[in-house]
Amino acid sequence: MKTKAEYIESMRNMNFNLYMFGEQVTNLVDNPVIRPAMNCIAATYELAEKPEYDKIMTATSHLTGKRINRFCHIHQSIEDLVNKTKMGRILGAYTGSCFQRCVGTDSLNALSMVTHDIDQKYGTEYNTRFLKYLRYVQDEDLVCCGAMTDAKGDRSLRPAEQADPDQYLHLVEEKSNGIMVRGVKVHQTGAVNSHEIICMPTRAMREEDKDYAISFALPADTEGVIYIYGRQSCDSRRIDSPNMDVGNILYGGQECMVVFEDVFVPWERVFMYKEWDFASDLVEKFASYHRQSYACKSVIGDVLIGAAQLIAEYQGIPKAAHIRDKIIDMIQLNETMISCSLACAYEGHREPSGTCYVNTLLANVSKLNVTKFPYEIARLAQDIAGGGIVTMPSEKDLNNPKIGKYVAKYLKGTEGIPVENRIRVMRLIENLTMGLGAVCYLTESLHGAGSPMAQKIMIARRANIDRMKNAAKRLCGIES
Amino acid sequence: MKTKAEYIESMRNMNFNLYMFGEQVTNLVDNPVIRPAMNCIAATYELAEKPEYDKIMTATSHLTGKRINRFCHIHQSIEDLVNKTKMGRILGAYTGSCFQRCVGTDSLNALSMVTHDIDQKYGTEYNTRFLKYLRYVQDEDLVCCGAMTDAKGDRSLRPAEQADPDQYLHLVEEKSNGIMVRGVKVHQTGAVNSHEIICMPTRAMREEDKDYAISFALPADTEGVIYIYGRQSCDSRRIDSPNMDVGNILYGGQECMVVFEDVFVPWERVFMYKEWDFASDLVEKFASYHRQSYACKSVIGDVLIGAAQLIAEYQGIPKAAHIRDKIIDMIQLNETMISCSLACAYEGHREPSGTCYVNTLLANVSKLNVTKFPYEIARLAQDIAGGGIVTMPSEKDLNNPKIGKYVAKYLKGTEGIPVENRIRVMRLIENLTMGLGAVCYLTESLHGAGSPMAQKIMIARRANIDRMKNAAKRLCGIES
Amino acid sequence: MKTKAEYIESMRNMNFNLYMFGEQVTNLVDNPVIRPAMNCIAATYELAEKPEYDKIMTATSHLTGKRINRFCHIHQSIEDLVNKTKMGRILGAYTGSCFQRCVGTDSLNALSMVTHDIDQKYGTEYNTRFLKYLRYVQDEDLVCCGAMTDAKGDRSLRPAEQADPDQYLHLVEEKSNGIMVRGVKVHQTGAVNSHEIICMPTRAMREEDKDYAISFALPADTEGVIYIYGRQSCDSRRIDSPNMDVGNILYGGQECMVVFEDVFVPWERVFMYKEWDFASDLVEKFASYHRQSYACKSVIGDVLIGAAQLIAEYQGIPKAAHIRDKIIDMIQLNETMISCSLACAYEGHREPSGTCYVNTLLANVSKLNVTKFPYEIARLAQDIAGGGIVTMPSEKDLNNPKIGKYVAKYLKGTEGIPVENRIRVMRLIENLTMGLGAVCYLTESLHGAGSPMAQKIMIARRANIDRMKNAAKRLCGIES
Amino acid sequence: MKTKAEYIESMRNMNFNLYMFGEQVTNLVDNPVIRPAMNCIAATYELAEKPEYDKIMTATSHLTGKRINRFCHIHQSIEDLVNKTKMGRILGAYTGSCFQRCVGTDSLNALSMVTHDIDQKYGTEYNTRFLKYLRYVQDEDLVCCGAMTDAKGDRSLRPAEQADPDQYLHLVEEKSNGIMVRGVKVHQTGAVNSHEIICMPTRAMREEDKDYAISFALPADTEGVIYIYGRQSCDSRRIDSPNMDVGNILYGGQECMVVFEDVFVPWERVFMYKEWDFASDLVEKFASYHRQSYACKSVIGDVLIGAAQLIAEYQGIPKAAHIRDKIIDMIQLNETMISCSLACAYEGHREPSGTCYVNTLLANVSKLNVTKFPYEIARLAQDIAGGGIVTMPSEKDLNNPKIGKYVAKYLKGTEGIPVENRIRVMRLIENLTMGLGAVCYLTESLHGAGSPMAQKIMIARRANIDRMKNAAKRLCGIES
Repeated sequence: MKTKAEYIESMRNMNFNLYMFGEQVTNLVDNPVIRPAMNCIAATYELAEKPEYDKIMTATSHLTGKRINRFCHIHQSIEDLVNKTKMGRILGAYTGSCFQRCVGTDSLNALSMVTHDIDQKYGTEYNTRFLKYLRYVQDEDLVCCGAMTDAKGDRSLRPAEQADPDQYLHLVEEKSNGIMVRGVKVHQTGAVNSHEIICMPTRAMREEDKDYAISFALPADTEGVIYIYGRQSCDSRRIDSPNMDVGNILYGGQECMVVFEDVFVPWERVFMYKEWDFASDLVEKFASYHRQSYACKSVIGDVLIGAAQLIAEYQGIPKAAHIRDKIIDMIQLNETMISCSLACAYEGHREPSGTCYVNTLLANVSKLNVTKFPYEIARLAQDIAGGGIVTMPSEKDLNNPKIGKYVAKYLKGTEGIPVENRIRVMRLIENLTMGLGAVCYLTESLHGAGSPMAQKIMIARRANIDRMKNAAKRLCGIES
Repeated sequence: MKTKAEYIESMRNMNFNLYMFGEQVTNLVDNPVIRPAMNCIAATYELAEKPEYDKIMTATSHLTGKRINRFCHIHQSIEDLVNKTKMGRILGAYTGSCFQRCVGTDSLNALSMVTHDIDQKYGTEYNTRFLKYLRYVQDEDLVCCGAMTDAKGDRSLRPAEQADPDQYLHLVEEKSNGIMVRGVKVHQTGAVNSHEIICMPTRAMREEDKDYAISFALPADTEGVIYIYGRQSCDSRRIDSPNMDVGNILYGGQECMVVFEDVFVPWERVFMYKEWDFASDLVEKFASYHRQSYACKSVIGDVLIGAAQLIAEYQGIPKAAHIRDKIIDMIQLNETMISCSLACAYEGHREPSGTCYVNTLLANVSKLNVTKFPYEIARLAQDIAGGGIVTMPSEKDLNNPKIGKYVAKYLKGTEGIPVENRIRVMRLIENLTMGLGAVCYLTESLHGAGSPMAQKIMIARRANIDRMKNAAKRLCGIES
Repeated sequence: MKTKAEYIESMRNMNFNLYMFGEQVTNLVDNPVIRPAMNCIAATYELAEKPEYDKIMTATSHLTGKRINRFCHIHQSIEDLVNKTKMGRILGAYTGSCFQRCVGTDSLNALSMVTHDIDQKYGTEYNTRFLKYLRYVQDEDLVCCGAMTDAKGDRSLRPAEQADPDQYLHLVEEKSNGIMVRGVKVHQTGAVNSHEIICMPTRAMREEDKDYAISFALPADTEGVIYIYGRQSCDSRRIDSPNMDVGNILYGGQECMVVFEDVFVPWERVFMYKEWDFASDLVEKFASYHRQSYACKSVIGDVLIGAAQLIAEYQGIPKAAHIRDKIIDMIQLNETMISCSLACAYEGHREPSGTCYVNTLLANVSKLNVTKFPYEIARLAQDIAGGGIVTMPSEKDLNNPKIGKYVAKYLKGTEGIPVENRIRVMRLIENLTMGLGAVCYLTESLHGAGSPMAQKIMIARRANIDRMKNAAKRLCGIES
Repeated sequence: MKTKAEYIESMRNMNFNLYMFGEQVTNLVDNPVIRPAMNCIAATYELAEKPEYDKIMTATSHLTGKRINRFCHIHQSIEDLVNKTKMGRILGAYTGSCFQRCVGTDSLNALSMVTHDIDQKYGTEYNTRFLKYLRYVQDEDLVCCGAMTDAKGDRSLRPAEQADPDQYLHLVEEKSNGIMVRGVKVHQTGAVNSHEIICMPTRAMREEDKDYAISFALPADTEGVIYIYGRQSCDSRRIDSPNMDVGNILYGGQECMVVFEDVFVPWERVFMYKEWDFASDLVEKFASYHRQSYACKSVIGDVLIGAAQLIAEYQGIPKAAHIRDKIIDMIQLNETMISCSLACAYEGHREPSGTCYVNTLLANVSKLNVTKFPYEIARLAQDIAGGGIVTMPSEKDLNNPKIGKYVAKYLKGTEGIPVENRIRVMRLIENLTMGLGAVCYLTESLHGAGSPMAQKIMIARRANIDRMKNAAKRLCGIES
């Protein structure tokens, strides 16, 4: 396994073609906007080095028997599924942010099942290819970016019906040694913190869409892959005031648009090729795993609850009944989310490929709660914090020789607490409810791993309504 | 294990001193108000006889190695805890009602731990006594009523401070062969369907309250124990129209006030005697188990969702987007409840006594959701059903030779569905949202196993706020 | 104006063809199930006699200049609209129930506009006929039942497409002196407490449905009109325990199915005849007025808040922070409802006919809140009340010579409060949250004046989305 | 009345002592962070010039009979109160932001009543002074900043008990010609866009706090008054990307900390001086008016609904049932807020001073809804918009010669819509849900005019619980 330092070093060696705010970025590692996001991934290496997290953060490879980072692991047991949820909880609290690496894990696990199932039906050899690739990922302890969402163009049209054929990533040309692809993947979390990028179709396909039914993996800095960094709430504060004012001084998220401009993929990296009838299955498998992963939001919630409790104490009102009640309400929402993620893991099962898979219904139920509860927790945190989170002067004002004394005097709060502490916690609450952290904690909770409607559709599909109807009929005396 | 028929027969042999609607009731088994409640308990025997439910409904006694009804079992593993939740789900769907037997199970399990812990501290022999009693219960396959809630009098006063000392059940006199007790237990679910009644304190006690810190078990028809049946929504409909109009034609709940008028308890049935410092522990243990048990509500929810889907079909609108959306919302709430109950079971642990115990925080989180979600599910079911659930004529009108034809003609709905089916489902929805079923499904969800505030207090106590505060501090750069 | 006594007397003289619970009922006035509903209407006469309510309960007829009951009045000003809301608030608190008379008022007002508009387009004389009829209603101070909802059969089919043509009330035969009609009106609130019944179409019609586009008024006891009483939660408790156990000992609601078996209507009572293009307009006008009327629910809410506060006091916990908070939450929901009803009245306008009409958008917004908020208020009331509302013994148990003492002793609560008071308030809360009162307060709030989806459709139609889009465009710099 | 241009010019002539981000700012008018906030106030002049808004935006002074800007007006009628709500709705939609001027209006109106009432009790001449000042404000058409919130220090201590006496603004010294004051006012909306600043106490006072019971007005650039600009979400984006990326390209809010460092106030500008018993009255009056003012949030809601509808259209899914349903839900919440604000205005009354005053209960109910509903509307807007609001590249990327084509191609959406439109609307939604607009739309909705708990306390105080209890008692038969 790589150390944290080795990971950072490996990133220095990547040759990303990246643009941010209209300019090309060459040194990503030391960029003040990007580094906090890279720190999150670094934390997945850092904690794996610590003995106290060993059971959760690492696992034994079923391919090699070696100890590997759990993010590179294929779930071999229910315990593995549960430990994934618990790993999310540890890292969410440690970073207060999206730590970005789970999307690759979920892609690997989904492909471990679907490549097997395609082979069973069509006699192909995707699973062998995939396992070889997986072994490489495990041995090198790599970060994989799982790339699913296409641009989609006019959403009322299917891939092959679009005026612009590139609105969904697709096959451009088949060559003897591989394929050429073109298109884009949007909303790519942690893209330029990754070693590898794994592409998958974004939706169910029909036969006429078969050139869009492709899945493959590439080194993230492959020629022809262009990254454009997404602009997010409060991103420029990282540049102008990188300390106190940013709230979370260590970590943050990252989203990129990833353009594939006629990129070549060798056959050994192709895991699905025109098997359109398996596209929806790959989407569902990846999405269900990834919906489980949103357990991480309940720990960002932990951070926010901790911050709310601190600010209540700093302001002298931690024992007010309404404050206590709001803290409990926040915990209730939070623990409900984690319970659902745990339940979908515990109620998982083994698939024919040998991989353990979450309970699809409960994974979707779990994620659908995540699309709502963090917003209410955020509102309660703002309620407890008070208006200062949007009216407080900047750190530079606190440090100004003429007016700093006023800021210090009047933001002091309860006796005995350094004014800086109060400001820092206020900024952390701002970060998580409307700043960079809110991107991870709120909007990503809503749309990551699919928007609410996607979960609703899956719930309708997986719930056993007939069983419920029959129970009702029996009780009220309906015989047919 | 007893068969269903043997259970019913055993109830005929009980000699309850019962009053209902101002009159003494002697034949409980054939009473139209009581029988549906007894049918619920009978179902716990019936399903245990069926091979397909064997794994869930029965267990192996750790005392005798014999196969016993799971309701008499002390949880020996996490799997046992999970199976309790799953057993609740099966029986809830089977009865569409509170099946009443879990309260005894939860009492037995709580006592298995607390008697052990008292003995450890005080060198007493409660656990030995208890295990002997437990063996009797298991061998005879008995139903135990767990009795906790006292009258409480003026709630701002503690037990020993009450003007009337009987407001909490208490020791009246110590005798050589046992003790005399007096008081009342209210809200006693399934009381006159039980063979045994197990009394426990209802709250934390101080030393001055020690005469109230008692726990014991008695045959339910012991002399001096008087039962007064609670009056519930639509109870008299069971008498005047026991078929279609009652909605749930098979099952229902039961609540009694149980008066102890100087009742004698022999020493071998006494499990706590003045150890006031263990009263709160017994309450918490029982309550946490029982809060897990409220998973059953998610299956009554299944019945209601099934009924809502049926009525939508009978009325020709199952595909309307808003109907589908409401059904999904109902499922979402329902599966969130079951997920939380599963999570608190899976995250349980073994106590020093050897008994496996649920995760207290998550058990309380689970129950607190149950105090809200069924109300919203009920509202959605009424929304889908339409106003007919409160305006429809009675079954007798349908059967009336003069006007029955109008009822049949105009309540018909979609072609091809018997009018009776539509009426029956409407009545089932009425039953579960405002009738006898609503007592179980709504009000009991709110107050059973403790009112919402009780869960909130436990959540505040069990959540690790310091861990959350420290996570927040680290991220925003606070060092102390 | 009639006195309360005269109204009751007038009801004795009606010759209704009524069936209830499978039997014909001749003496309605003294029937224990029906009388509480009749008492509600009687209250509309009683309060009109009281000088302190004069401004609200009465108005000056624009036809005769005489003082009339406001329920017979056509709104001549914004103040009239506002006073209708305020009248609802007074009567709701006075009866704790649906007082049933507003549906007639809303029908009269809608017809006053639509008959005028039809005449304008087609040169008919409906408005003249209507005003003559209105004068009769005002002079005699009559109660009118507004009848809109048809059986609807298969809801995916339009009226003329139904297999059974009677699923919507329709013209059977045109005669020289009038018309013959057949069909049914369901969910008829207060039907057998009314002197008159006014029928209107239940939905938009197309030309092929024109035989269904009819509106007319008849004496409620006209030959061929058959009433079948709806069975409601706890209705039989009115028979077996008409005092304490019913909760609301004075008042209740009433719903009937009203069959029209070839009924003759003279021309002077016909207000719409095949003008299918005005059907939706009449529905919308009536519905908007009637949605305003649901302000009454906020006063039933007042009663429930009062009851919750009383029970908290009787149980010794009125000052607990969580109790106070719940009471405030109930008030908040309640006053939000009343505010919306007031706003749609204040923002009304005068129509070409001279009648003042509510703001349609806000009237629908108002009602849509009413479909949700009472359910949450009811849940909070049950939360405050405790489980006793579903477990308490009956009044007959309290009065039983043997066990009455136990009921009295153990249900006592706080020192100094008669046990009867506590029981009575508990039963009132039961009544309003799951008994007869809940029919009015909850289910009727959901479906009366149209189900939630009906309000949503109107809101989508009336909101000015283009204005909103243009505001957004300007601010973000979009020019086209 | 001043024109918009004259207002801007008048601001150039102010001599504010302002710090922002650690540096002194001299040219406020052309500062890119400040100007959008100033534009909001300018809009209050601009719209008053337009004939079509004349009735709403202007009023006739009761002092001079001249036409004045409504923001300088003392409400003389219910219609004035209603027009204030409607003025808020117009300006909210016009600016999509807090337009900041209402706080001064609410201060003037509150003082018009309370100065009168103090005079009545103590024979003082505050009202005369105040009216003279008011006339000056009206004649010059000035913007007044209403300053209430103090630093508060340790919130468990009262003003006179604080370790640092300056935690509440207070009298330092009485002089012959006036008084010296010291302290701070925080959360000062629109402070450096104002001509005048009006200080009021922030809470109820006791006699020992009487040096804190002072109210006065000063030119906003008086010597000794120091402004420190609050740092807000995305503020620096105004500097680095002042066009498309800011979302709302025209307007924004403003919050300052205002330090009073031994500032002199002449007697003619002092409106309360040690009359501690009127402090709570002034707070309540100001707060109730200001809670009505939050109607403006419902129009920011209009902008957000418009933006959500636009993005749905641009993405090709405006007719999806779930999108329509969410839009309706947003409208429902929004119109409920406006209804409550209208109701508290319509149900206002005239006070002894002659000023018309809102219904306090309903004003608080209105504001309490505003603390919740915008958060849910914002969540729904994000749901409809999709993840692009937090992952989209910047405007500079769109304009980059190398990669701009990819951004343009892949963010295009539906055929025929310029890609820029889609980006602009997405950024507007970002602005309103997590950027600068969210400060106004969300956090200010929560804490402006007092935090939720402040409204709850007032609701508990103003609701007539006794009336409710009596209604309940009568219905269930309780006589005492």
